Amino acid sequence: MDASILEQLLEEVRAGRLEVAEALERLRHLPYEDLGFARVDHHRALRQGFPEVVFAAGKGTDQLKGILAALAARVHHILMTRLAPEQAEALVADFPEARYHPVSQVLTLSREEVPDRGRGAVVVISAGTTDIPVAEEAALTAQIMGNRVETLYDCGVAGLHRLLGHQHLFRQATVFVVVAGMEGALPSVVGGLVDRPVIAVPTSVGYGAAFGGLAALLAMLNSCANGIAVVNIDNGFGAGYLAALINRRDK
Amino acid sequence: MDASILEQLLEEVRAGRLEVAEALERLRHLPYEDLGFARVDHHRALRQGFPEVVFAAGKGTDQLKGILAALAARVHHILMTRLAPEQAEALVADFPEARYHPVSQVLTLSREEVPDRGRGAVVVISAGTTDIPVAEEAALTAQIMGNRVETLYDCGVAGLHRLLGHQHLFRQATVFVVVAGMEGALPSVVGGLVDRPVIAVPTSVGYGAAFGGLAALLAMLNSCANGIAVVNIDNGFGAGYLAALINRRDK
Amino acid sequence: MDASILEQLLEEVRAGRLEVAEALERLRHLPYEDLGFARVDHHRALRQGFPEVVFAAGKGTDQLKGILAALAARVHHILMTRLAPEQAEALVADFPEARYHPVSQVLTLSREEVPDRGRGAVVVISAGTTDIPVAEEAALTAQIMGNRVETLYDCGVAGLHRLLGHQHLFRQATVFVVVAGMEGALPSVVGGLVDRPVIAVPTSVGYGAAFGGLAALLAMLNSCANGIAVVNIDNGFGAGYLAALINRRDK
Amino acid sequence: MDASILEQLLEEVRAGRLEVAEALERLRHLPYEDLGFARVDHHRALRQGFPEVVFAAGKGTDQLKGILAALAARVHHILMTRLAPEQAEALVADFPEARYHPVSQVLTLSREEVPDRGRGAVVVISAGTTDIPVAEEAALTAQIMGNRVETLYDCGVAGLHRLLGHQHLFRQATVFVVVAGMEGALPSVVGGLVDRPVIAVPTSVGYGAAFGGLAALLAMLNSCANGIAVVNIDNGFGAGYLAALINRRDK
Amino acid sequence: MDASILEQLLEEVRAGRLEVAEALERLRHLPYEDLGFARVDHHRALRQGFPEVVFAAGKGTDQLKGILAALAARVHHILMTRLAPEQAEALVADFPEARYHPVSQVLTLSREEVPDRGRGAVVVISAGTTDIPVAEEAALTAQIMGNRVETLYDCGVAGLHRLLGHQHLFRQATVFVVVAGMEGALPSVVGGLVDRPVIAVPTSVGYGAAFGGLAALLAMLNSCANGIAVVNIDNGFGAGYLAALINRRDK
Amino acid sequence: MDASILEQLLEEVRAGRLEVAEALERLRHLPYEDLGFARVDHHRALRQGFPEVVFAAGKGTDQLKGILAALAARVHHILMTRLAPEQAEALVADFPEARYHPVSQVLTLSREEVPDRGRGAVVVISAGTTDIPVAEEAALTAQIMGNRVETLYDCGVAGLHRLLGHQHLFRQATVFVVVAGMEGALPSVVGGLVDRPVIAVPTSVGYGAAFGGLAALLAMLNSCANGIAVVNIDNGFGAGYLAALINRRDK
Amino acid sequence: MDASILEQLLEEVRAGRLEVAEALERLRHLPYEDLGFARVDHHRALRQGFPEVVFAAGKGTDQLKGILAALAARVHHILMTRLAPEQAEALVADFPEARYHPVSQVLTLSREEVPDRGRGAVVVISAGTTDIPVAEEAALTAQIMGNRVETLYDCGVAGLHRLLGHQHLFRQATVFVVVAGMEGALPSVVGGLVDRPVIAVPTSVGYGAAFGGLAALLAMLNSCANGIAVVNIDNGFGAGYLAALINRRDK
Amino acid sequence: MDASILEQLLEEVRAGRLEVAEALERLRHLPYEDLGFARVDHHRALRQGFPEVVFAAGKGTDQLKGILAALAARVHHILMTRLAPEQAEALVADFPEARYHPVSQVLTLSREEVPDRGRGAVVVISAGTTDIPVAEEAALTAQIMGNRVETLYDCGVAGLHRLLGHQHLFRQATVFVVVAGMEGALPSVVGGLVDRPVIAVPTSVGYGAAFGGLAALLAMLNSCANGIAVVNIDNGFGAGYLAALINRRDK
Repeated sequence: MDASILEQLLEEVRAGRLEVAEALERLRHLPYEDLGFARVDHHRALRQGFPEVVFAAGKGTDQLKGILAALAARVHHILMTRLAPEQAEALVADFPEARYHPVSQVLTLSREEVPDRGRGAVVVISAGTTDIPVAEEAALTAQIMGNRVETLYDCGVAGLHRLLGHQHLFRQATVFVVVAGMEGALPSVVGGLVDRPVIAVPTSVGYGAAFGGLAALLAMLNSCANGIAVVNIDNGFGAGYLAALINRRDK
Repeated sequence: MDASILEQLLEEVRAGRLEVAEALERLRHLPYEDLGFARVDHHRALRQGFPEVVFAAGKGTDQLKGILAALAARVHHILMTRLAPEQAEALVADFPEARYHPVSQVLTLSREEVPDRGRGAVVVISAGTTDIPVAEEAALTAQIMGNRVETLYDCGVAGLHRLLGHQHLFRQATVFVVVAGMEGALPSVVGGLVDRPVIAVPTSVGYGAAFGGLAALLAMLNSCANGIAVVNIDNGFGAGYLAALINRRDK
Repeated sequence: MDASILEQLLEEVRAGRLEVAEALERLRHLPYEDLGFARVDHHRALRQGFPEVVFAAGKGTDQLKGILAALAARVHHILMTRLAPEQAEALVADFPEARYHPVSQVLTLSREEVPDRGRGAVVVISAGTTDIPVAEEAALTAQIMGNRVETLYDCGVAGLHRLLGHQHLFRQATVFVVVAGMEGALPSVVGGLVDRPVIAVPTSVGYGAAFGGLAALLAMLNSCANGIAVVNIDNGFGAGYLAALINRRDK
Repeated sequence: MDASILEQLLEEVRAGRLEVAEALERLRHLPYEDLGFARVDHHRALRQGFPEVVFAAGKGTDQLKGILAALAARVHHILMTRLAPEQAEALVADFPEARYHPVSQVLTLSREEVPDRGRGAVVVISAGTTDIPVAEEAALTAQIMGNRVETLYDCGVAGLHRLLGHQHLFRQATVFVVVAGMEGALPSVVGGLVDRPVIAVPTSVGYGAAFGGLAALLAMLNSCANGIAVVNIDNGFGAGYLAALINRRDK
Repeated sequence: MDASILEQLLEEVRAGRLEVAEALERLRHLPYEDLGFARVDHHRALRQGFPEVVFAAGKGTDQLKGILAALAARVHHILMTRLAPEQAEALVADFPEARYHPVSQVLTLSREEVPDRGRGAVVVISAGTTDIPVAEEAALTAQIMGNRVETLYDCGVAGLHRLLGHQHLFRQATVFVVVAGMEGALPSVVGGLVDRPVIAVPTSVGYGAAFGGLAALLAMLNSCANGIAVVNIDNGFGAGYLAALINRRDK
Repeated sequence: MDASILEQLLEEVRAGRLEVAEALERLRHLPYEDLGFARVDHHRALRQGFPEVVFAAGKGTDQLKGILAALAARVHHILMTRLAPEQAEALVADFPEARYHPVSQVLTLSREEVPDRGRGAVVVISAGTTDIPVAEEAALTAQIMGNRVETLYDCGVAGLHRLLGHQHLFRQATVFVVVAGMEGALPSVVGGLVDRPVIAVPTSVGYGAAFGGLAALLAMLNSCANGIAVVNIDNGFGAGYLAALINRRDK
Repeated sequence: MDASILEQLLEEVRAGRLEVAEALERLRHLPYEDLGFARVDHHRALRQGFPEVVFAAGKGTDQLKGILAALAARVHHILMTRLAPEQAEALVADFPEARYHPVSQVLTLSREEVPDRGRGAVVVISAGTTDIPVAEEAALTAQIMGNRVETLYDCGVAGLHRLLGHQHLFRQATVFVVVAGMEGALPSVVGGLVDRPVIAVPTSVGYGAAFGGLAALLAMLNSCANGIAVVNIDNGFGAGYLAALINRRDK
Repeated sequence: MDASILEQLLEEVRAGRLEVAEALERLRHLPYEDLGFARVDHHRALRQGFPEVVFAAGKGTDQLKGILAALAARVHHILMTRLAPEQAEALVADFPEARYHPVSQVLTLSREEVPDRGRGAVVVISAGTTDIPVAEEAALTAQIMGNRVETLYDCGVAGLHRLLGHQHLFRQATVFVVVAGMEGALPSVVGGLVDRPVIAVPTSVGYGAAFGGLAALLAMLNSCANGIAVVNIDNGFGAGYLAALINRRDK
């Protein structure tokens, strides 16, 4: 929206060139966006410093290059998720300041250092090695949004000692992201040990009655521990984003 | 919204008592609704003449009486759906102009005759006798919204001759509402015979693998006939409402 | 059917060459179609001007060429949906008047201009960029069936301002087609703003608990807004077809 | 089993070389199969003349050649289902008397003419063109089991006239096989027109909420017509086999 | 339909009082049913001797009395399924010739002996004691339709010896109805022992992951034995009806 | 089976009164059970000492009394599951030696002490207090089958310390029964701590997305710990029975 | 655990009455809990001030009285959820300082004022009137955990203006709880307007294809807005608890 | 953990250099793992002799080589499951003592003979030929864990005689693993014949309503035979592992 439309209208009223009744009428017929959503954008303004996010899956390499070029000219931090290695190679060739993280298939591009905006650490815990890509997507998302991230991988409930052995990490956390496939029990265990928000991420790891992550999803939704909420299957980005919102220092 | 807030603001600008910059700032902080949603309501105005609709299920008799009293003072046509007979008795005792339709568990209250707003007839067809309550809910909804309604009940696909024997009705229809439980095949058959919109309503009639109407719902969504769309299971009201929108004479 | 069979029979009765009893018997054994379905076809006759529709998925290129050749000799407007680009290339090489729309994978072939048969506009709204192919299939279907179509893409509920900023389009609409994947919330929002029929199209866009469009489908079936019905997942064609039926000027 | 074991035992009893008590004991410890299942096989004997059936999916070409060679040396009729065209080519090269049916991906090999064992005809009806492969699998299965088969394809419920126009076929049928995907309504329609057993075959034809044939399956299980039973999705073979059992002339 | 309409029309043509063209026109506009469905009813005529069937669930006692009175005046055999004991008592009080079968909640009323119309016996086998009501519904349905019925209850797969010990019954069967809940394995076992059609009836017997009969239903649809088809969960009537159609002596 | 039939047949052969060929023929037509299933029962004999089990749900009080009377005359140990308290009262009044366990709704009746047949202890662990009835059903089943049972209740994964604090119990276990509803994570945790078989029992405890125990069931099937198998939802009896089989001292 | 066991052991070591090797051995065999979980409790200590929570559903009135008495003697704040009105009456009679909230079926008992522990407000928004009980459960939970709570009810997506008209509330929020049944679209809309964490709570409000809250649950999991996570269906308590954790002032 | 930390602490206490109170405090802050989980590992020690298990699916060949090299240096027995043939070839080239089992896609590597640790035999039974890979995975797992394994393949319920003919095997079994796809009925049949634990393994063999093994899974969970528990679909390894735990000779 261009404030000048409104300003001009008010100037005309002030100058007596426009009757109040006519001004009211015009206001009523201005495009909706021009009036009201300033305030929505006012909220959006709070988001400054947030990265631009691109979901790369299903987009062509040329399309992605175009998007990246457009964004790179305008914003400081870009996060591209679900980017195939072949495409990543082509993008990094054109944008040398971009960095590709093959495990999570994430590309990040920061034109300046990310400031620490958090109240504490975001601790990302994952169950099996095959859950790491999703966990890394969460970690990279939280990082580029200005958070200190600690990761603790390979802590399945069938080997609790690894988890219990790293409880010192727990004290630094403002929020936990807990990633697990198969039976999805890890968030319940973590939730029983800590008193901080736990964002549970089911993954599609598993086979048979895992039903593509459904088993883990249902388990997490039914957790007997308090302080847990769940995001979509394999949605590491969503968990990292939410963790960043929770950890953000008050403005 | 009260237009006078805006008017007053403009008057102050005009009188030179308010700077344009300050007026802009105030505009930006007015409650959202006061500015923009006039136009939304402008659309809502088109709905004049529509009945007020009350979903009675889960509400107490006293609550319903209160709602009915409040509405009856303000609007001309009221439609109350899913109203249990015992509650209906109590309401009709207090509002003698109300009429209860026990088959569909619908109560209607019209303080004036409903004008015919339709381009043609809404034809409501149902499969089995147990589907009639949902069909009647659709028919009564369309009627109170100003439509001529023709009904054709007990036309299951296992007895096509009844359906085929009433094709003369088909020529009067602007839109069809087709209600069926069990295998939900009737909308496909009707859709193959007519060239008008068909609103399919699955019902929860059936047992076993009917899964509470899921079988009929899936069948209707997968119809091989063209011109069909589906509403929720047992949602006779929704089908009647949509039929009324489709049949409405252009303004 | 060939009316001459019946005619001939009646002539023979008239000429006294055929007993009434025998004529009755013969009538009883004539192929069913020859007697009764004239009236069904009478309805079908109303569909004249409708395009012939071919669902290309799963058919070979040669088969499609044959179908296209046969239809092109007989009808004025052809709509071919779900046509792969490679096959489209081969078809367009043979039928230069055909036009392929790669985004929606639709091929259209019109041998004359499509007349405007509508009462107003069909407005097609979609949520995300990945929903556009389905939205375009709906738009092209409605267009070739004789409708003015307006499109409004990229209006997800997470960015309501785009939607609200184009409400002027809403006033021209006789019917809306609203296309969305993921949580499928857009039809509810549109349905709350307008008083026209809304055809909701869930798409298979999404991952994890989107379950191939099931999440969006269920959301749309349960919409709290009135005047909405739903077609199958990704069924842009079905929505466009139904929209055309709804928008058609009365005969 | 080799009857001679038993025979020998009895001979020894008869010759007085084996005590009755000892014989009883030995009988008790003979391999189970050797005693009891003669009668099961007695039933199996009734099946003589039935073809040997091979489910080719997932088997290698060499494995299939071996199976075919072994069977061809022993039985008169072989039916191989779900055989890919490439594999079929290799098999037909080695077994020139085999015949491959590419539409249904069925291979048949008969070393003598199949006698007509039926009481009447098996009538196979299918809804859309994409259902034909499954319908053909059913037809070929019934044929090689000794049945006269009539087929009636492309009779979707959205075009009832084709179905109704071929009712003369219905009078010849002892049993119907009705094949349909999408909404699976055809068996209900056929079941309403005939008084013979109807075997309904849902197919995986469709997309979106067809859920791989689930919609059609549920519809068929919930048919409001009587005399219908359902086989697995795409199980043309199973339907043809059952139809043959039903149609078989009494022994 | 009354054939006299057609007859009269032909007479008028013959008498020269009606032009052929006019007669054609009138034929075209006669109610559909009057022309074509004679042949459908011709098929229906084959059903003579079949009982009238009433699904009592959800109907009031007075309604059922009315239906019974109307039917009893017209047909020889009536079958009423899913009739609650209290209602049955009231009906039997009024119709002393009716007989109520409390286990299956079936009421039968025959005004003459049911002739044997079958080619052999219908053998009804059930797994557990809790499956007997459904099995009895099947048995009574087949009986009143003119079949000799043999029953074999309590033959779960966990106790095969009972089943195997009654194989002499198998030889008399033209068709089997096999009723089972829980894991639904019995039809596969029976199907492996016999060479006759097997109609499998899943029941809602079970708890937990039986999901109201879904487990048994899926098991039966996936049977590795040939010659099996499945009806809806708890649909004993449907199985008995189909068995009667299969067993019926050729006309 | 009566061995005398066989014996008599052999005697006749021996005496020369029966030809071997004729004897063979007769053997072939003896009821199946009479020959072969001795060996099956031979296996059954191994089960001596096992209790008779009655599933009381859905049976009338009189029926249960009859069953109990019949069994009490014949066997030493009876286990009746899912017995409502009112019915239990009536049964205990008649059978004073019976004992009703109201938490698990189990009735046990032992006419002699149950000997210890186990190699070690069966340890039954449950998650929440609402899981105790199922856990108790398992414990009582194992007990009456001759096992020492240790129970450890209220050990949800959200409070691991209780579980870890009782590890001394673990060393006595031959087999574990782990009972949990909601997210069903407990078997995974136990399975990670022990090297003994774990029988996981999902319960229907929970609400919403617990879907009647489905969430717990899927979680347990997908456990990342080894040595776990799962029984049906709420099937405490099944788990106790299997535990008893596993723990049984070798014969 | 009782520290004195350890203390005593150390004292004996110190006094030379216990060898180090022996002390090590004893330590190794002490109940697990006595050693290690101090630190877990250390975390638990952080939770001081948190209310004790009792899930009343399925518990008897006497049992609840006992629990309440025990807790009231020990803790300052008690929250009892899903408490039926009849039971509440009995409890309040005994504990006059308890307060029952009939809409949400929550009982709260605070022996001192709840301090404000939050960084800002928890804003609870709900869609329909039938969602209010769940929303209130969330609000009361957050309140008793020391949060300022603002509520905004009856803001369905079909009437966006109410929501948009209260955006001033949004600026005070640290975290949102958004409660909706049916299509569950509200969290997406809120999530698009704000840049704070949104906890989405699906409710079981709806019918037919709402499948007890599944439709809303799936929609929320697939939200196209960022910063959203989901709790179990109807789990207002869980959402309020998590919101309190998120809003808590840093320690 | 290093016991020396504790030892050192105790030594200091003993030497009087450390106050008891201070020692208690230090103990409280030692890393959790260092104290308590010795006992967990104590249990793990019981597992000595167990093979190391690697789930190869989704791992690269180089990664697998690395894992294999690391393990081979340390343990005596390695089991690698779900290993593709191409990868197996590369591994066997480097580790000649490894043996690849192509049917089950299992690689085993034993540096010494596996001792017999079992009380009896593990009997693995499978239904169809396509179930053999899963059955072999179970058999190889049990073997390398020190069990005598007997296999009985191709024993579908539709051909019971093969199963019944090998009952002599049953007497040697301590535990059964029963593998079946499609309707999953075999475990019920086996469970009815034996009095030993039965581990049921559903496979994804089948099509259509088999739903990837769901039908078999549900059937097995609902088995009417006692003594059965179920593992995940296609989880031959899990079944073999559990069978080994059950069969293990008491320590």
